[in-house]
Amino acid sequence: MARINDHYLKLQASYLFSDIAARVDAFAKANPDTPILRMGIGDVTEPLPAACREAFHDAIDEMGTHNGFHGYGPEQGYPFLREAIASGDFQARGCDIHAGEIFVSDGSKCDSGNIQEIFSSKARVAIPDPVYPVYVDTNVMAGRSGFNVNGRYEGLVYLEATAENGYIPSPPKEAVDLVYLCFPNNPTGACATREQLSEWVEWARRHEAVLLYDAAYEAFIRDGSIPHSIYEIEGARECAIEFRSFSKKAGFTGVRCAYTVIPEDLVALDGTGDRVSVHKLWNRRHSTKFNGVAYPVQRAAAAVFSEEGKAEVRRLIDFYMDNADLILGTMRELGFACAGGTNAPYVWIRAGQSSWDLFDQLLDSTGIVCTPGAGFGTCGEGHIRLSAFNSRENVEEAMRRLRDAGLTA
Amino acid sequence: MARINDHYLKLQASYLFSDIAARVDAFAKANPDTPILRMGIGDVTEPLPAACREAFHDAIDEMGTHNGFHGYGPEQGYPFLREAIASGDFQARGCDIHAGEIFVSDGSKCDSGNIQEIFSSKARVAIPDPVYPVYVDTNVMAGRSGFNVNGRYEGLVYLEATAENGYIPSPPKEAVDLVYLCFPNNPTGACATREQLSEWVEWARRHEAVLLYDAAYEAFIRDGSIPHSIYEIEGARECAIEFRSFSKKAGFTGVRCAYTVIPEDLVALDGTGDRVSVHKLWNRRHSTKFNGVAYPVQRAAAAVFSEEGKAEVRRLIDFYMDNADLILGTMRELGFACAGGTNAPYVWIRAGQSSWDLFDQLLDSTGIVCTPGAGFGTCGEGHIRLSAFNSRENVEEAMRRLRDAGLTA
Repeated sequence: MARINDHYLKLQASYLFSDIAARVDAFAKANPDTPILRMGIGDVTEPLPAACREAFHDAIDEMGTHNGFHGYGPEQGYPFLREAIASGDFQARGCDIHAGEIFVSDGSKCDSGNIQEIFSSKARVAIPDPVYPVYVDTNVMAGRSGFNVNGRYEGLVYLEATAENGYIPSPPKEAVDLVYLCFPNNPTGACATREQLSEWVEWARRHEAVLLYDAAYEAFIRDGSIPHSIYEIEGARECAIEFRSFSKKAGFTGVRCAYTVIPEDLVALDGTGDRVSVHKLWNRRHSTKFNGVAYPVQRAAAAVFSEEGKAEVRRLIDFYMDNADLILGTMRELGFACAGGTNAPYVWIRAGQSSWDLFDQLLDSTGIVCTPGAGFGTCGEGHIRLSAFNSRENVEEAMRRLRDAGLTA
Repeated sequence: MARINDHYLKLQASYLFSDIAARVDAFAKANPDTPILRMGIGDVTEPLPAACREAFHDAIDEMGTHNGFHGYGPEQGYPFLREAIASGDFQARGCDIHAGEIFVSDGSKCDSGNIQEIFSSKARVAIPDPVYPVYVDTNVMAGRSGFNVNGRYEGLVYLEATAENGYIPSPPKEAVDLVYLCFPNNPTGACATREQLSEWVEWARRHEAVLLYDAAYEAFIRDGSIPHSIYEIEGARECAIEFRSFSKKAGFTGVRCAYTVIPEDLVALDGTGDRVSVHKLWNRRHSTKFNGVAYPVQRAAAAVFSEEGKAEVRRLIDFYMDNADLILGTMRELGFACAGGTNAPYVWIRAGQSSWDLFDQLLDSTGIVCTPGAGFGTCGEGHIRLSAFNSRENVEEAMRRLRDAGLTA
């Protein structure tokens, strides 16, 4: 009889969202007159920019004509989009990345989940804690871990992000082959400085490890000294892969467009000790298991780089970051120690108690729903995440309720 | 240093399309006045149906409003599309498939490439020959084969589709766990009858194997007695996964929407011999590594099931199948033995010589580009594939040139 991939059975079921839903339901039943304010949302809420919609519409009209019809496109993306990305997101910031190194995809979740496939199943993997669960789960599925014991998988190396290190983990003492990093970070909102990233790049080159750098939130960086791309660091072309997305930047969570950068300089060893191009391996994977992003979606994404598109993206980012300012200001006023919120849409708040206790306290006293940090890993315990993705009205109302409730740290 | 997945190095580079391109280039240079007619195209050529474009446009307008904005959707697809599929593609044909068993995706290439992940890396795999290369390559990447020796990978079981068996392989003698089947077939155009499919289902249930049934071309079936879905066969719910796509049916190759059906009855064994739901495993994979299809694309796909959409799809299919009639009629008139072309957009032609020899002969004498069968596997040798995906004008011109050239089998 057919047998399954047993590694899947090691996966811990996540009850985070169902637990939240159950507590919110109970509150709603007990307090039918208190409107619930969801402040834990990890999804954008503002409309898709007009420049993107216009390009999207035009491409659909093209698809209705014989001459303008587009069938299968290049799996790696159309040159018009790869070139706009290379120029607008990298060369404009002084990064030596060219269009041929960009792989357009339908999402960073797919890319950051699939990238491990091209590496050895025996690769030693380091993963931040707290963390976006996809990095962990996809390595567990691929057999790079043992079982989960007390919330951590045996065999994975955890990079602890705590108040003590400003939520920026340092390179591990033990040798690892693959390291997932995410800056601006989800969930902590922490951003690595140029010096901290340089330390990582230097370490990766010394240990010949590969950094898997998730920069899905780079557009939210407002501090001019913080790098947007790992390729702003000397030497990163030889040790880093970067994931980027239009999701949070331009409201594409329901449109689906992202990309992965793999420099042609990046190599890894095969079983005989020869150096193999990681770029070529990923190209093989991408063209074998993926058929490209919809042509109209690629046109919509390219519009992000137009003058009108750039202005709209700036307005979107400013809007969400003004929300973040309100949240950060209020929480600090109430005495909470906070990270994030200045170069990221998430505010990471020390609970001063267990994360579920503060979750319950917020919900019961104000009808506000946050995300308990424990849902992101062991080091998330003792924290909650508040999100700037919301309407201004909701954020203002939530902050008013927090102050009125007399809540203090 | 980071090590790669060495199984990737077993993959044979495919030179099929580059070889074709090189020969076409050489011909074009030598014959600048002969317009080249590409009759090997595996991609649709007609515009996207108006019903789909209209729904697509409407959804983009929605995305421009606060109330109509859609961010992340359910990874498995929106209920409106899953329900339209279950009802329109299955229940309408008497298949017991419900919306919860449909996983909407961005392409059958992704689905048929990724499905193997949830099964044991030691699974024994049977694959047709000739074949769509994705089934083979993704299993090689996952380590289920040895090296390629004389065009075949050690460890895979090849199901030979030849003129002798009417291009419909019978179940293998040896025990296998996973079997890829594709009907209507790419590249042969062959369709399995109800009796032949029943034999496969019976065999799979006896051996507790899983059938991976690719029905991407089902919309081209015109013979009322041929099943469109494996679920028209009694017992298939316990042994089969089906892949479907909007690509060829509704001109979606550049729009990207497909789906996979995994019945809740399908189980496989874990390492301790317990039965595990394959549906649940795929749901875990799909929701961990995929973030859903664009909302506007799902709206465009749902329009395929509207009355207007159905009428347009019928016209598209009729158009391509009229092309197929012209090709099949001409090739038979010229004395070639052909398969396919009656319930599939591909005509599979016995070359009476090596497939590359007939390729060269066609190109040199008529400027027509076909696909040499050898590119699809050992059993493709001695055949060429002609495709009905083209304008009427091109097909008529190609057939006229073939007759004028006095080409005979």
